[in-house]
Amino acid sequence: MPETRETLASRRDTLRSLIRDAELDALLVTDLLNIRYLTGFTGSNAALLLHADGDDGTVFCTDGRYATQVAAEVPDLRLVLERASAAALAGHAGAEAARYRRTGFESQHVSVEQHAALADLATGVELRRAPGLIERQRLVKDASEIAALRAACAAADAALAELIEHGELAVGRTERQVARALENRMADHGSTGPSFDTIVATGPNSAIPHHRPTDAVLAAGDFVKLDFGATVDGYHSDMTRTVVLGEPAGWQRELYDLVAAAQAAGCAAVLPGAEVSAVDKAAREVIERAGHAEEFPHGLGHGVGLQVHEAPSLATTGAGTLSAGMTVTVEPGVYLAGRGGVRIEDILVVRDGGGEVLTLSSKELVVV
Amino acid sequence: MPETRETLASRRDTLRSLIRDAELDALLVTDLLNIRYLTGFTGSNAALLLHADGDDGTVFCTDGRYATQVAAEVPDLRLVLERASAAALAGHAGAEAARYRRTGFESQHVSVEQHAALADLATGVELRRAPGLIERQRLVKDASEIAALRAACAAADAALAELIEHGELAVGRTERQVARALENRMADHGSTGPSFDTIVATGPNSAIPHHRPTDAVLAAGDFVKLDFGATVDGYHSDMTRTVVLGEPAGWQRELYDLVAAAQAAGCAAVLPGAEVSAVDKAAREVIERAGHAEEFPHGLGHGVGLQVHEAPSLATTGAGTLSAGMTVTVEPGVYLAGRGGVRIEDILVVRDGGGEVLTLSSKELVVV
Repeated sequence: MPETRETLASRRDTLRSLIRDAELDALLVTDLLNIRYLTGFTGSNAALLLHADGDDGTVFCTDGRYATQVAAEVPDLRLVLERASAAALAGHAGAEAARYRRTGFESQHVSVEQHAALADLATGVELRRAPGLIERQRLVKDASEIAALRAACAAADAALAELIEHGELAVGRTERQVARALENRMADHGSTGPSFDTIVATGPNSAIPHHRPTDAVLAAGDFVKLDFGATVDGYHSDMTRTVVLGEPAGWQRELYDLVAAAQAAGCAAVLPGAEVSAVDKAAREVIERAGHAEEFPHGLGHGVGLQVHEAPSLATTGAGTLSAGMTVTVEPGVYLAGRGGVRIEDILVVRDGGGEVLTLSSKELVVV
Repeated sequence: MPETRETLASRRDTLRSLIRDAELDALLVTDLLNIRYLTGFTGSNAALLLHADGDDGTVFCTDGRYATQVAAEVPDLRLVLERASAAALAGHAGAEAARYRRTGFESQHVSVEQHAALADLATGVELRRAPGLIERQRLVKDASEIAALRAACAAADAALAELIEHGELAVGRTERQVARALENRMADHGSTGPSFDTIVATGPNSAIPHHRPTDAVLAAGDFVKLDFGATVDGYHSDMTRTVVLGEPAGWQRELYDLVAAAQAAGCAAVLPGAEVSAVDKAAREVIERAGHAEEFPHGLGHGVGLQVHEAPSLATTGAGTLSAGMTVTVEPGVYLAGRGGVRIEDILVVRDGGGEVLTLSSKELVVV
């Protein structure tokens, strides 16, 4: 269920205080995900000029293709229909320069060329760099965001369970077939599309962290790594499970147990106030102690929400701390080139008592 | 089949002459599609510092996740492995500032924030705005690009034919079911994914130009508008067909014939040297003469290739002329609010003798 009008208005109110803190009169929002977050609009062209004083001075712009859709999705904001939406609102600010004198723009999204064009249009307005205001707000998820993430995770959980139950993850099938079956089953459970390119990697391919499905055939004894996600109301799930086709060999069980232990250590470290680098370290140390430091070549996890990868970055070089309400992945992996690899990934909501896991598929070594 | 190493090297050579014409020593390429076009790399993080003098001074950067993939896809360029790829190459240019003194950057892709960071790293280098160099080169497709587009169009043609043949486009099914069936059949024919969100719009929904599939049920007498595309080797097909479920009513036949006539007029105007606005006009006039000017609220078409929407824009306000080797869509539509709409869309290659149509599905009014 999409956000209520009240939730959206409350997000705009929260942003207004950030805008005032930044000593701005208004913010020109041009990133489509940020526009969706603030207004509920899901079309592919829009801009929003949000005034710090309230929705009175706030203007929404999209083009004529979306006239019907915008009436349904954004009934409560003043509307301008114009193809060049950001330019139109820069012109609007220029026409009322006294009201929009110090207008911030999303300088981490606006290109150098676009900025030059907007500055020409916003006559008399001081366009100020205001990077990441809304992204910082989006770090902590509200209840309707967590509900959407929960639904997306549930769709992925159900799809994986059915995939196994219906024998679609089995010796003789190709990586591509398995990926499509998984995506179709997620759609059956309400996913509007895969969160990202589904990864199905069998045998030695499982040792490639970001393998894309090929016509490689699943063979007895293979590790099969599945990294996939569903999208619900624009929110993305992201989960990795690694299964084995038949009785696991000794090295497979050992590798799996190692990654599972690292993943558990990472999950246990997900607490409000924890340094993101310390969460990474909690899991990484387990793998390092086993002598596989080099075979875990990526960060431990990332924030997830309207983007499948967003802040914070749980990595050795990450900066900052976790807060209650953030949603992050925890996904250590160990990849033995030419043999196989294991990654196990969950999404957790940071809660006061510890992380709440949203991805509920079993983390026991599943033997298919 | 992806491009050969020779094709990719030849694209880089062509770009070098554009770089020299722009009085630059090098170009820092950060857009992933442009990087794919020039190197064949298909990963999600990369940058390329292309020196005007040749591949000797050219450096490719991606991160460790792609170590195996980059060895296979880009064996012929000097490689740096670094997570912050653009920053690493800006630093590289700064370290050899005499060689990279005037380095262009893709100012229509690089954000204001990223530019500030790159400028700090490229000490002693004059970073110059160089928007659209590669996009201009990509306007005219080479043989391997047209082969990929042809394969993508063929996958979509085959999928539509099978959809109809297997009774999957029929009264009682939902828009969502039809969209998924179409996407699955495209995948059967080699599509790595839909080119864009598949549009299936039945009955009154067909009057919404950019409708997204819902649980609306296809009913007898409905127009069903299908706008969809396949992706092959990164190239996107894009085709719209409108069918009718059962014997068409008089108004439906009339509307269909009108749009078909406009589409034929647009296709006939696709010639080297034609002004893009004149191509739009050729189709639009047919619709205007029939009194439906207001009900054709979008441009006639767009370029298509590595992006599903790229230059040129075939629109009233479009500027420039067509050249042989460009690939464009021709897609007029007339939408009668509350009743239904028709759009017919093909992809054409601009050829000396006239446009070559790549989308081969019948344009007769198909009665399902």
